[in-house]
Amino acid sequence: MIRALFSAGDPIWPEYQTTLPPAFAKAGLSVDLSRDHAPDTVDYIIAAPNGPVQDFTPFTRCKAVLNLWAGVEDIAPNPTLTQPLARMVDPGLTDGMVEWVVGHTMRHHLGLDVHVHGQDGQWRTDYPPLASQRPVTILGLGALGTACARALIGLGFPVTGWSRSQKAIDGVTCLSGNGGLRAALTDAQIVILLLPLTNATTNILDRQTLALLAPGSFIINPGRGPLIDDDDLLTALDANVAHATLDVFRVEPLPAQHPFWAHPKITVTPHIASTTRPETAALCIAENIRRGEAGEALLHLVDRTKGY
Amino acid sequence: MIRALFSAGDPIWPEYQTTLPPAFAKAGLSVDLSRDHAPDTVDYIIAAPNGPVQDFTPFTRCKAVLNLWAGVEDIAPNPTLTQPLARMVDPGLTDGMVEWVVGHTMRHHLGLDVHVHGQDGQWRTDYPPLASQRPVTILGLGALGTACARALIGLGFPVTGWSRSQKAIDGVTCLSGNGGLRAALTDAQIVILLLPLTNATTNILDRQTLALLAPGSFIINPGRGPLIDDDDLLTALDANVAHATLDVFRVEPLPAQHPFWAHPKITVTPHIASTTRPETAALCIAENIRRGEAGEALLHLVDRTKGY
Ligand SMILES: NC(=O)c1ccc[n+]([C@@H]2O[C@H](COP(=O)([O-])OP(=O)(O)OC[C@H]3O[C@@H](n4cnc5c(N)ncnc54)[C@H](OP(=O)(O)O)[C@@H]3O)[C@@H](O)[C@H]2O)c1
Ligand SMILES: NC(=O)c1ccc[n+]([C@@H]2O[C@H](COP(=O)([O-])OP(=O)(O)OC[C@H]3O[C@@H](n4cnc5c(N)ncnc54)[C@H](OP(=O)(O)O)[C@@H]3O)[C@@H](O)[C@H]2O)c1
Repeated sequence: MIRALFSAGDPIWPEYQTTLPPAFAKAGLSVDLSRDHAPDTVDYIIAAPNGPVQDFTPFTRCKAVLNLWAGVEDIAPNPTLTQPLARMVDPGLTDGMVEWVVGHTMRHHLGLDVHVHGQDGQWRTDYPPLASQRPVTILGLGALGTACARALIGLGFPVTGWSRSQKAIDGVTCLSGNGGLRAALTDAQIVILLLPLTNATTNILDRQTLALLAPGSFIINPGRGPLIDDDDLLTALDANVAHATLDVFRVEPLPAQHPFWAHPKITVTPHIASTTRPETAALCIAENIRRGEAGEALLHLVDRTKGY
Repeated sequence: MIRALFSAGDPIWPEYQTTLPPAFAKAGLSVDLSRDHAPDTVDYIIAAPNGPVQDFTPFTRCKAVLNLWAGVEDIAPNPTLTQPLARMVDPGLTDGMVEWVVGHTMRHHLGLDVHVHGQDGQWRTDYPPLASQRPVTILGLGALGTACARALIGLGFPVTGWSRSQKAIDGVTCLSGNGGLRAALTDAQIVILLLPLTNATTNILDRQTLALLAPGSFIINPGRGPLIDDDDLLTALDANVAHATLDVFRVEPLPAQHPFWAHPKITVTPHIASTTRPETAALCIAENIRRGEAGEALLHLVDRTKGY
């Protein structure tokens, strides 16, 4: 009998209590899932970074920590966490992110707000350019960035993507490394941030890189708040950047008095770009436990030296 | 030397004057394009339904009338028009329609307005369902309906389509005929109208058919205004229909005092869902003239008995 500890907030427990057992059964696993196993009996921890377990030291026989979220910046640096850490790559989470990114991209591309706000009897017959005339750049070509790139290519946008290691994705202009960043941002009309938060990505959009974007450009940030220097963004919104749609912030919930809320060129969304969907996420967790038990390599292991 | 008459409003003449000659040259055609050929010398008329030529009788040697728009309801019934009539199927127009339909579908699917209108410091963390849980129905599976169906399938929506003749489109539940309409609309959460306006399609959404839609459903009409009974729509917006986004109307421009403008559950857009794009449309026109000269069947001929 495998012992799995569920270490996450109360509100999500019922959903996982329903979806994990059938996923374990489907994977041929016999798992005792609980929220309060004795630490030294636990084989796997299913963990949210803000869950009750913050000190991993007592989990002496734990074979792996399986993160419930895609982002690991709040758990990967934990010095007590010496076990292998896997992050969440969930098809449901990916689908949701693609939908959110496509929706917000189309909002800006089509200029939907002119009509959403302009129900005043005036017939404003301007056509947007076709997507084929609207270059989009995605920073980060991981699970989420690649899926978004594919969807936007499918809608006709010319897509440039940027990652640490060089990628090859059909139809996407793939750039990498520090040298590639300048080219990726220069003249981009829509920039989408899907990087993890690490030392290397903090403030990746700052005064210098923001200045590379095309006049009238749009920024969409479903990645992490500190990827953008907040003050430099405010400056850029008075210059070349037309609008920023931000889902993530240095402090969340974004305080009600924060200048982003009232800024006419910023749309705040409350960290809802996507979320792990228990039904599909349970299958990913079960698959990683199956792998762990079979002595196979775990999927989506975090590289602690890189931070993601 | 082929003589082609351009019969459309002044504003679009410069664009076609620039794009048609190279398209003719590319098709190996020698064409004298003008806005004032003598009627009995004209081989082809490139026509907007509201263009200067309304009486086609004097065009005795005209081999075909090539419509500049996709919709033909204002030209097909013209009793003086005895020549073959081709409608416009332009890849640029199709792309624009797909983008508009995807944008407005995502706006409603994601509930974007909650955030676009809700920049008040409140953190509203509700997630929409995934697209896979949001059935979409498209009425009309022609050039535009089929392209929109493909794009929405690509984004994960379950798509049902309805047409006069039975179709087979990968991934789309295809229904046809009067019997199919009821099934297509029942429990649809988003309904998109891409039918031509004919006697058979006028008021196709009326009290009875509107009542079939799911509670909280959305209607998106980039087809033609009279496809929907206006009064029945207003009634449905007080019942099961949550919002209607309307691009087309019985009278256009929609008069400023029309109740649709001020209705909180209606978004009016000014017949901008898509437009013929001269650069690609010129190639379609040239191809049809090439076919006419080579004795081949013209593309996209209108069936006058059906009205589209
Ligand atoms: N707002 C939300 O609701 C939400 C939901 C889920 C996730 N997220 C955010 O989205 C992020 C991305 O998720 P994911 O699953 O796509 O992550 P992932 O698969 O790990 O992909 C990360 C991508 O970023 C690239 N990258 C990392 N550091 C870089 C650097 N210094 N320079 C250039 N490229 C770098 C990686 O390059 P390599 O491919 O070369 O490694 C990879 O392409 C998460 O970390 C999280 O912060 C937000
Ligand atoms: N708002 C805008 O900016 C804009 C721009 C362009 C076009 N439009 C509108 O979009 C319409 C569609 O364009 P399109 O190029 O896709 O036309 P299309 O290729 O002729 O397709 C029309 C579709 O409607 C179906 N249909 C027609 N009558 C029907 C009936 N009585 N019952 C069931 N199905 C019926 C046809 O069925 P079959 O396939 O069996 O014939 C076909 O699938 C145009 O007529 C125009 O009104 C609007």
